[in-house]
Amino acid sequence: MKLKAFHKLSYGLYLIAAEHQGKKAGYIANTTFQVTSEPPQLAISCHKNNFSTQIILDSGAFSVSVLKKEVNMKIIGDFGFMSSTDINKFSGINYIKGQSGSPIVMDSSVAWFDCKVVKSIDLGTHYLIIGEVIDTDEVSDDEPLTYQYYREKYKMYSPKNSPTYIEKSKLDDEVQSIIVEERDGETDVTLFDGKKYICAICGFVYDPEEGDPTMGIAAGTPFEELPESYRCPICNAGKEYFKEE
Amino acid sequence: MKLKAFHKLSYGLYLIAAEHQGKKAGYIANTTFQVTSEPPQLAISCHKNNFSTQIILDSGAFSVSVLKKEVNMKIIGDFGFMSSTDINKFSGINYIKGQSGSPIVMDSSVAWFDCKVVKSIDLGTHYLIIGEVIDTDEVSDDEPLTYQYYREKYKMYSPKNSPTYIEKSKLDDEVQSIIVEERDGETDVTLFDGKKYICAICGFVYDPEEGDPTMGIAAGTPFEELPESYRCPICNAGKEYFKEE
Repeated sequence: MKLKAFHKLSYGLYLIAAEHQGKKAGYIANTTFQVTSEPPQLAISCHKNNFSTQIILDSGAFSVSVLKKEVNMKIIGDFGFMSSTDINKFSGINYIKGQSGSPIVMDSSVAWFDCKVVKSIDLGTHYLIIGEVIDTDEVSDDEPLTYQYYREKYKMYSPKNSPTYIEKSKLDDEVQSIIVEERDGETDVTLFDGKKYICAICGFVYDPEEGDPTMGIAAGTPFEELPESYRCPICNAGKEYFKEE
Repeated sequence: MKLKAFHKLSYGLYLIAAEHQGKKAGYIANTTFQVTSEPPQLAISCHKNNFSTQIILDSGAFSVSVLKKEVNMKIIGDFGFMSSTDINKFSGINYIKGQSGSPIVMDSSVAWFDCKVVKSIDLGTHYLIIGEVIDTDEVSDDEPLTYQYYREKYKMYSPKNSPTYIEKSKLDDEVQSIIVEERDGETDVTLFDGKKYICAICGFVYDPEEGDPTMGIAAGTPFEELPESYRCPICNAGKEYFKEE
């Protein structure tokens, strides 16, 4: 079985959010798809260990924000790589309250869906949660972010609790190293492909050959010459959190 | 509710195939996604009226071929727009038999998954079918076809039985016309955006301004100047099946 075949499946990237008894939760997902048109229903796949999953099930509702191609990396860092027990992910974030009661993140969003849970199906490690779309809107004409673009641009792979996670040992010769960070089960494992300096918090890899265009760092800039103010473009960790491979 | 928001969700395009008691079935789908990694499971959304759906449920198995970006349009035409009662979709097609017993189409495929059905969930108009992947392989390094690329290149929209179908009347001012062809419920409705000549079989629109590069017809070629041998690039219908808008 060639597990790299799974990378041929196409996905977008989405911010799923929910709220129960005043507690907000949100995470980044690539598995959102429409399953019926009458009525419009979406399916999302949620790891049982994720904090957000319980909030979605308890509240019986969730929102999906479709992220734009040039997404604000603070959103990926906070919602994808931080724990709700460490930070308030919604602080400083522009969001509205949906009819379902769920927060709907507007920053970096091109469209959103407000959903009521109609069914949850136990698939072992994950629940497949079906939501009926009770409201939706377009936010901008910007191009949606695809998982393929994200993976190629940031050299990031699926975290451990993602439905699309592949163990490094099973990935043939595709990647050479693995970083594990246990952070409340939201997103915690990143594979990388042999670059030079890695962020110990989130696994982002700084490759001097490529620089870091998202942070204004030119290709060919050695790690040592990065300004002291350089921070990880994914999780905002300082330079001191980077270590050599 | 802005239904155009649904077009912001990202999908690939896949050929789903199955066989039961010697009867093969196959169709084109955009809704295939991985729902767990241990074990690897895929979900597909199948309209209850589709011939293929019953074959999948009866055989307890299906295959998914990931189509490549520059897909052979005969495959889209045959599997997307023809009925298995009219033609043998697998004639002249290069396919192998999977461990599950399902045919796996190799033509225009970059990767494939062979799946055993483990669950089917009734979602009203559709079944969400969960398959455990028992075998998979990469076929080529070609880029996978995305639904967005397909929609933009061929001006085609979701057929009526697709989970992502949107009624023309609900699409605001996005499209101006609609073609309906009932063909055993596999794929039967195409929306178009005001071009000049339409194929009455599948709804493909020939726009003289754009020509038809897939058939070697230069931009600016009037319909009248098309060779008599011209055939619809989607469903292979002859020129006589085209009519003016």
